[in-house]
This record gives sequence, structure tokens and C-alpha cells, in this order.
Amino acid sequence: MDEPIFDIAHLGHVELLTDKPDESLDFFTRVLGLSESGREGESVFLRAFDDYEFHTLKLTAAPTTGMRHVGYRATSPQALARRVAAIEAMGCGLGWSDGDLGHGPAYRFHDPDGHVFEIYYETRRYVPPPEEKPALKNQAQRVPNRVIAPRRLDHLNLLATDVAAIRDFVPKALGSRVTEQIVLDDGTVGGCWFTVNNKSYDVAYTRDATGARGRFHHVTYAVDQREHILQAADVFLENGVHIETGPHKHAVQQTFFLYVWEPAGNRVELANAGARLILAPDWQTVTWTQTERMKGQAWGLKTIESFHTHGTPPA
Amino acid sequence: MDEPIFDIAHLGHVELLTDKPDESLDFFTRVLGLSESGREGESVFLRAFDDYEFHTLKLTAAPTTGMRHVGYRATSPQALARRVAAIEAMGCGLGWSDGDLGHGPAYRFHDPDGHVFEIYYETRRYVPPPEEKPALKNQAQRVPNRVIAPRRLDHLNLLATDVAAIRDFVPKALGSRVTEQIVLDDGTVGGCWFTVNNKSYDVAYTRDATGARGRFHHVTYAVDQREHILQAADVFLENGVHIETGPHKHAVQQTFFLYVWEPAGNRVELANAGARLILAPDWQTVTWTQTERMKGQAWGLKTIESFHTHGTPPA
Amino acid sequence: MDEPIFDIAHLGHVELLTDKPDESLDFFTRVLGLSESGREGESVFLRAFDDYEFHTLKLTAAPTTGMRHVGYRATSPQALARRVAAIEAMGCGLGWSDGDLGHGPAYRFHDPDGHVFEIYYETRRYVPPPEEKPALKNQAQRVPNRVIAPRRLDHLNLLATDVAAIRDFVPKALGSRVTEQIVLDDGTVGGCWFTVNNKSYDVAYTRDATGARGRFHHVTYAVDQREHILQAADVFLENGVHIETGPHKHAVQQTFFLYVWEPAGNRVELANAGARLILAPDWQTVTWTQTERMKGQAWGLKTIESFHTHGTPPA
Amino acid sequence: MDEPIFDIAHLGHVELLTDKPDESLDFFTRVLGLSESGREGESVFLRAFDDYEFHTLKLTAAPTTGMRHVGYRATSPQALARRVAAIEAMGCGLGWSDGDLGHGPAYRFHDPDGHVFEIYYETRRYVPPPEEKPALKNQAQRVPNRVIAPRRLDHLNLLATDVAAIRDFVPKALGSRVTEQIVLDDGTVGGCWFTVNNKSYDVAYTRDATGARGRFHHVTYAVDQREHILQAADVFLENGVHIETGPHKHAVQQTFFLYVWEPAGNRVELANAGARLILAPDWQTVTWTQTERMKGQAWGLKTIESFHTHGTPPA
Repeated sequence: MDEPIFDIAHLGHVELLTDKPDESLDFFTRVLGLSESGREGESVFLRAFDDYEFHTLKLTAAPTTGMRHVGYRATSPQALARRVAAIEAMGCGLGWSDGDLGHGPAYRFHDPDGHVFEIYYETRRYVPPPEEKPALKNQAQRVPNRVIAPRRLDHLNLLATDVAAIRDFVPKALGSRVTEQIVLDDGTVGGCWFTVNNKSYDVAYTRDATGARGRFHHVTYAVDQREHILQAADVFLENGVHIETGPHKHAVQQTFFLYVWEPAGNRVELANAGARLILAPDWQTVTWTQTERMKGQAWGLKTIESFHTHGTPPA
Repeated sequence: MDEPIFDIAHLGHVELLTDKPDESLDFFTRVLGLSESGREGESVFLRAFDDYEFHTLKLTAAPTTGMRHVGYRATSPQALARRVAAIEAMGCGLGWSDGDLGHGPAYRFHDPDGHVFEIYYETRRYVPPPEEKPALKNQAQRVPNRVIAPRRLDHLNLLATDVAAIRDFVPKALGSRVTEQIVLDDGTVGGCWFTVNNKSYDVAYTRDATGARGRFHHVTYAVDQREHILQAADVFLENGVHIETGPHKHAVQQTFFLYVWEPAGNRVELANAGARLILAPDWQTVTWTQTERMKGQAWGLKTIESFHTHGTPPA
Repeated sequence: MDEPIFDIAHLGHVELLTDKPDESLDFFTRVLGLSESGREGESVFLRAFDDYEFHTLKLTAAPTTGMRHVGYRATSPQALARRVAAIEAMGCGLGWSDGDLGHGPAYRFHDPDGHVFEIYYETRRYVPPPEEKPALKNQAQRVPNRVIAPRRLDHLNLLATDVAAIRDFVPKALGSRVTEQIVLDDGTVGGCWFTVNNKSYDVAYTRDATGARGRFHHVTYAVDQREHILQAADVFLENGVHIETGPHKHAVQQTFFLYVWEPAGNRVELANAGARLILAPDWQTVTWTQTERMKGQAWGLKTIESFHTHGTPPA
Repeated sequence: MDEPIFDIAHLGHVELLTDKPDESLDFFTRVLGLSESGREGESVFLRAFDDYEFHTLKLTAAPTTGMRHVGYRATSPQALARRVAAIEAMGCGLGWSDGDLGHGPAYRFHDPDGHVFEIYYETRRYVPPPEEKPALKNQAQRVPNRVIAPRRLDHLNLLATDVAAIRDFVPKALGSRVTEQIVLDDGTVGGCWFTVNNKSYDVAYTRDATGARGRFHHVTYAVDQREHILQAADVFLENGVHIETGPHKHAVQQTFFLYVWEPAGNRVELANAGARLILAPDWQTVTWTQTERMKGQAWGLKTIESFHTHGTPPA
């Protein structure tokens, strides 16, 4: 029996593109409660209050929207080298980059749908300035005095034309496990959830009904309690943010969720997973059927139509 | 640089002794919301609704109280073999046991304070009978219709005369990381928190002021939300359970907690960690000073005196 | 300026009919967490743990479903006499009844849509048997050890063909205030919320699109926290209860809600109003337009179609 | 049987004195989440986001701390006249004032311990400027985007040398009911809770152990959920606010509470009462004995010593 792979530690950051940079930045900081830790070129580096790295969201002004790349941090330099070797052997490597404000050298590759990933080990820890020193030293930064103040980056969701191909690819590239999936009646894979650690997922893929390639579905930040998501809904309402669906509980992965669109159209989720973790080293993939998915979310909410069609950039 | 060790997947179970077996069982099932999955000899096997294994608590009738052993599950057979070799080399091995109702062969060893550990890979997954089948298939069992219904085993806390020795021992034996510790003004280690995975800790050790060896401090089950702990406090109150301290938030590890004593005197905690996880593969141990600890818990609650003296069995 | 009327203290009880008495009783006790305080004839008397009266729900076996009557308690014998005189003058009185297990003499009348009301002063306080004595003496009964354990009866909702007529009637009969209302573009009243005390409403009326008369929409029990409603949703899911809509927050009255159907088809709501109260003695009715209502609930959930059509008995 | 009195609608406002006006104002706005609605002379007028009146807290710079006066709103002009007549007959009247920025003419009187009360009917409703217009029109103001954002003023607590005298006085003056009280073994009244409406209390008195007269114990704002109080504790911690005790649940009145001291030393509470209301028009006073009170708060927290000694101004 092959041993599980522990080469990748966690999802590190997502680079999002926005064609409304000022409004997007206002949303992510004033409304969503992220903090700015730096700027470089067209990009602003953002993080949640307990993200230990310099940034988990790189917001980049661009002529369009969507995701430019996603970064994962390796568990050690040796682990990084093993992954690079494996990925090069898979033939999808793009080579090394020098990194940026937030981390050191990163090896880039693309998934079968064209999304760009990078893996790195050397990182820059966030060091709070005096006014951001937290009262409790086991926390990266003070809790912002805003209703919405997510603790950390949680996961992202990408669209792909062939999710079955992705299901083969991601475990090979990152050493991820497939924790849950949706297999439709015609045998195609409707969605797939992956994790490299004890979180129930760090990336999910769902089928892009439009046939477009390389699109982005959403990025998710985690809050500590479900009640915080209910409070967040009021803040979104008061600030004129488009609430797409929720709050409700997903049947898949059981996450309590709320989806909104930031001003440029990128979808953002707040989520709480309760105490649910994937601890079993031999976790058996949970497979949902088409019939089961038609029941809607956990408590019966029907999946909103735009959830299947809206991605960024627009198709 | 040495790579981190990923040989142990998670804390598996704790065997607690009780000299009031009927009352203890009533507490753990009717009040604390655990379910019985089997019995053998003097032991009843219990679990929380989303524990994937057959049991996480083995409750054994005995002339005394305290912990008989704690079990950890390895990430693979190969990983188990590596740990056994390492532990044998450390000279603290006790040899193999056949396992019990809940798991296969286990290798036993003792820590420097005399607590017995076992590590195993082969396990028995809980298979719910029809009336316990959950509505959502990604969950081990139905949610019990009780106010207190913890999701899973979280961690345990042991007392030791020499916590510094333990701080050296546990990472070597299990591959754990030290996430937080208390170092007193005289240089002695007052407490130490360890993890083998992304949880902030799965075992903690604190100094036994009585000088006794091998004693048990508490076992903790995790609930999904802090509000569930507030509700639990009412249930304990209505059922005449001794509430020792809480609900409040720990400064160390920031866990929201509530401590009670089950009828035989073993301490039990309910806890919620919010979305806090240890994701950094190179997490830097947080060290609390004596002065910092004298501030009490996060919001100022003073540590109750019995917390330093009450362990099982009585000293 | 006329003074406000304080003759009616609060909503007292609702008598619901069920053609599936065993299943309905199982739902209201085992699932919804009400307690039985007595039986008489075809009726079982039920209450929430902090309802101070003998019952707040009278569940009566019958060939059909719906509401047989609703009871309000007066603030004094004198106040009761004033209301009776006023109602008799309005020409809708039905005369006195002897009361039942739960209260003394009651004066009955009907609203313009044919629903039967009664008002009474003499009541029977719930006296807990020893095993139901609460730990805190300022509470009527122990908190049941069930996930769903509402604190008290909150309000009911009735269907009516002419809500404008109701809007005139209820304040005259009970001394209620109209706290909120929906006025459609054609000038008809789509819904109306009334209160006799500081609660934001104790009865609401909405238009019966079917043209039937005297129908029942739902009865609501209040829980202490919004999180309790999220937990309740899981219990309903695990027990196969039809969840109609929610959890979500109403725009009207801002109540956090969850609607289910009990086995016989009567709609039941769990709700939490937070700290919202109507304290102003001269509260100004809030009027919602058709356009505003088309935005859906507070966070955008569209009102489910069955909410407009499903009432009991079936039309 | 005398009818209950409904002449007073609700607690209206509290005027607090501070000898650190800038720091106190910063606390009440930036930390506690109140909004400023006006200034006059040495006073700043503050309110919670769903307080319907112009102000509920009048913060006045002064050489000392404590409460200058408390205001209650009558249910009608006629009711106000009845109360004034009753109070004048009691011999404790102080005469009419012209009111201030927030309300019209008020009749002033003092309680037996020297605290100054006023009652008024004419009030000034808060009218939000455009940027404070709430998304939901049944709310006074937008929810502030701060972690702590109480919904409304809840109650106050005053110290008195002779609480038994107060217990006689308040119902006569305001028409209040005594919902709970503490009667010590020597027959003296240790504490007394009063309400004029369905809230479980709007003013409480506890014995001033120092023998001083006319002192202030605390003012309380209500938040919607208990979880909001847990979040508030973190904000107080991060902002260096002195947390005196809590969060915990009171045995008396069952309120979930958190006490802090604002910079000038006045005690402030955040509280949540869940769905608990006093609906019975003939509520029977709950009397706690000395023995019962020695058990501490609901879940066992001992009452902190400063709670018995710290009042403002200092004794």
C-alpha cells in the first residue's frame, strides 16, 4: 500500500484580478475585514487577521476578472523538490518564478483546464506593526473591530470543463486526497473536493457549463462561528453587496456558507466548518449521486441558478 | 533541515477508569451525548456522533479512576513500523498488544511519567445500524437529539512531574510538534501542548504539583459552536454535574472551554476552537511566561485552584 | 389623544387540529421539544419549558387540520370585562365558555374571517413535578435535554380573505397595535402584524390567495438564540420532517426563522427575534410596498411559493 | 383586586458623568459601538443603532463620575399626568424641567436614596441622516460595522443603602412590578429587580455596602445574541478595557452578561436575555435566599468582590 503524501502543507494564497480595483479593495478591506500588508505594482496584498503569512489574497488590477494563480506552501524544501520532480514528470510544469513580496521562489504549473498553480516553501511571516499587536501572542494580528473579520483563508473553487481529468491530476500534482465528489447519472464528475491536510477541502472544482476554460468560481475565508456569518449577511445588506445565496448549510462537506459577489464580480464565500476535520488517513471518498444533489443543500435550499453559470472572467 | 514527521494521523482513543461505572456511563451517554458502540469485559466503548472509528472512549470499571492508556492511529502501516522502531530505540517500548473491539494490533510504550500510550494502524470503522444512519452521508452517525452532542474526540491533558522531559519525549516518540508552552520564571516547564496534525493540540501536559506520577487531568470532546458550550452548561446545571470552571476562553490556544467532573471524578472538557488551525509546517512554539499566565484566562478569569490539584486517580 | 389599551396581556394558547394525532404528538414532543401537561377528551395539552401557564398548545384529534381557536389572557378581571363589553358592542361575540384544563371562564368571539378567539383571565399555572423542577427557580420547568427546546409560545399567523378588515378589527377587539403591514400596489393589504405588548407581534394575518375562510398559516415557538434554529434544522433533517423554508431572516419584523410542516400538515415555525422589542408607546406602523416585498427576505431568499398557498385545513 | 399600572412605557435614558470625557466618549463610540446624535453644553448624546429615541445615554463631562439622572417615558400624556400626581402625593417630587435635546418637559423626583429620576412623554425620534439609513426600514439606523453594536438600551443598576425602602417606592412611583429579589437571612433586602413592561427588568437596586448614598452601579445595553458578547470580550481585551467579570449567565433573571469599566470608572454591561420575557400580568416575585446566592452565578462563577464595592462616584 502506498503511503499518503504529506509534501504540501496548505493553500497559501490566491491572486484575483479586478477591473474595478478601488471598489474591490474597499470591499475586501472595509466590508470583508481583510488587512493590507503591502503593495507592489498593480497588486495589493491582503490577509485575514490570523493568517500567518504576509498575504493570502493578492488583488491585482487588470482589464478583466478571475484568478491569475493559486499558491500552495510545501511542508519542507525537500518536499518541494519532490513535488517539482513529480510535476515535471507529468509534463505540465511552467518553471520557477522568483516569488513576490510574500514568498520566495515558486514552481509554477498548470492544471488540465489551464489554471496556474505555484508551490513554494520559503515564505514571509506577517509581523504586526505595534498598533496591530494582538493581546494574545498566539495570534498573528489584532482582531479588526469590524463585524466581518475572518480568521484565515479557507479554500477556493475553480471551474473546469473536465472534472474527471482534474480528479486524476490534483492528487498526483499536490498529493491531495479526494474527500467528496459528485458523480452524475451519465458518469461524468460534476464536482470534486480535494485536501492536502486535515481540512475537509482546500480546493474544489465544479463543471463549467459554459465550456470556457480556466475560470474561477470563488474564494472562501473562514470565520469562527456560524453566527458570524449571520451577522455578515446584515453587513453585506447594509453595504449594498450582492448576496447570491445563503446563509445555509451545504450537504457536501456540511459547511455553513454565504456567497456574495465583490464589486468586480468575483464570487467570495464566508464559511464555517464547525469542528469537522478529516482525520482518517485512509478517508474514503464520499460520492454523491445526481438524485441526492437534486435535494438541494442540507436543509433543502435549492442551488441558485447563477451558481452554475456565474464565474470569472465572464464566459 | 529535518523534515517534519507525518507518521501519526491523530489521537484515536482514551481508556478511562471509573469506580462508579453505572453513573459514569449514564453521564457519558445521557448527559454528554456519546453513543455506545460495544461492550467487552469491564469496558464500554463510546464515541461521538462524527468519530469515524468504533470508539474514542473506552470506559472501564476498576477500583480506581484515571487513564489506563491513550491510543494514536498511524498514517500507514509503514509509518507505524517507523514509529515502533524509533520508540524501541528510545528504550521505552512495552511491546505489542492484540488490540481490542475497536482496532487491530497496537504497540505500547510509556512516557517518562509512566502514562501508557499505544499506536496502531488497523482500525474498525463505525458502521451505523439503520436507525443511526445519518441524513447526510458524509457523517458517521445521526446527530443525537440531545442538547450536548459533541462531534468528535479532541484532545487529552495529562499531569507529569517533569514536563520538560515530556517536551523532549513526545516529539521523538510521535513526531509531534510543540505548539505552545509555559516556561516559569525558574526555567521549569509548566505546561506543554503537542500536535501531530493541523489541530492546535491533541495532548497537553501540565505539571503535577502533588508529585504523583502517571495521573490524568482531562479528556476533551469538540462541539461545533461556542453557543453549544453555553447550552451544555445549562444541561450540566440541570443534571447536578459539578461544573469546575467556565465557560470561558483560554489564553493558551484560545479554545473556548467548559470543565466538569464526571461522577467518578475524572475531569471532562467540552471545547470549541473556532476556525483556528496550525497550518504552518514550521510553526514556531509560542512560549508564555509566568507573568503572562498570572493574568488568568483570555478574558481575565482566574484559573481555579482545583485545576492545579485535582487529577485522577487522587494523589 | 386616546390612550393605548393595556387590557390584554399576551397570547395564551392555540388549539390545533390534527387528523394524525399520534404522529403529530410525537412531532411536538420528541422532535419539537414541548412537554405534555395533561389530556382531556381528544386533546393533549402541551407547553414549552418556560411557558408559565398549564399549556400553550392544545392538540386535538379531529377529522381535519387547522386551528380551532386561539386564546389571549387579559391583564386583570376588570380588563377582561372591558374587552367583553367592547367585543359585544362590535357584534361578533360568541358568549362564554367554562374554559378547560388550562384556564377558567373564557369569552369567545370570531374575527371577520371566521377564526375563533377567546379571552380569559383566570389561568392555571404550570407546577412542575419533582423531576421537572428547574435548577433555577425563576424558570417554569427544567430545560428538556433535546436539541430543540423552545422557551415559549411566540405568535401565530392566520390567513384571511380581507386583511384590511382584520386590520380594523383586531385593534378594536384586543387593543392591539399594528406594528408592520404590507400594502400592495392596488391598495389591498397583503399582511398585517399585531401586538398587545412589547413583542413585535403576537398574531399576523396574511391574505389567503385561495379565497377560503378561517384558515391557519402557522404557530411559532421562540428559542433563545439564532444558533438554536440552525441546530433545529439538523434535527428536522435527521427526523424526516418537511422543511419548507429557512433558516433565514425576515425583512418584516427581522425575525430569524425556520418553517416546517408537522406530520398532519400544520405549519410550525421556530423563531428568534434577538433583542428587538416594541418599546415605543406610539410606535408608527411600518408599511412595506409590493416592490419592497419582491426583494424577498432580508438577505434575499425568495419567498417560497407554498408559503402563499399552503394553509390548514387544505383549501 | 387592583389593576396593574401601565403608565410608564420604558426606560428612556441615563445621564452619566465622566471626569475623562474624551476617553469615555471614545470608549462608548469606537469600542462599545454607540452613535453620537448630538451635543449640548458639556454633554454628548449617544444611542444604540435600534434605539428609536434621539438618545439613550447622555454623557456629561463633570468633576466626578456616577449618574446624574435617569429618564423614563410615559405611555401617554394622561399617564404622565397620573404619575406626576401620584409622585407629588408621595412627597418626593422635584418639579418640572424643560427637557433637553432629546425630549420635552420632564417631571423630576428622587428615590429614597437620592437618585434623580425624570418622566416625560414628548420625545424626539431619531431620524437617520442619509448615510445612516438602514437597509430594512423597520430599524432606526444602520447596523454599525463594529464588532460591538448593541441594539438598544436595556437597564440600569443603582446602589442604595436601604433596598427594602426602594422596593416599596419604585412600584408606587412608576407602577413597576418586582420581578425578582434577594432577601438575606437577617431579613434585609440585598437586591431588587423592577420592570414597567415585558422586559424582565429595567432597573435593579443592590445594597451599597459602603453606606454611601445615590451611587450608580452600571448601565446595560442589549445585544441580539450571546455569541455577540463573546466577541465583545475579545474587543475589550484588544482595546485594554478592564473586564471585571464574565461572560457568564446570571442566576437572577438568567441574563448572559459581561461587565467592564469605561475609562472614567463607570461600570457598563452588555447583556442578552434570550427569548425570556415577563408576560404574566400577575407575575409572582421570585425570592432568592442568602444560601442560594452563595452558589454564585448560574454556572457557578463566584460573584467578584469588586461587584459589591465598586460604584460611581467612588465612596
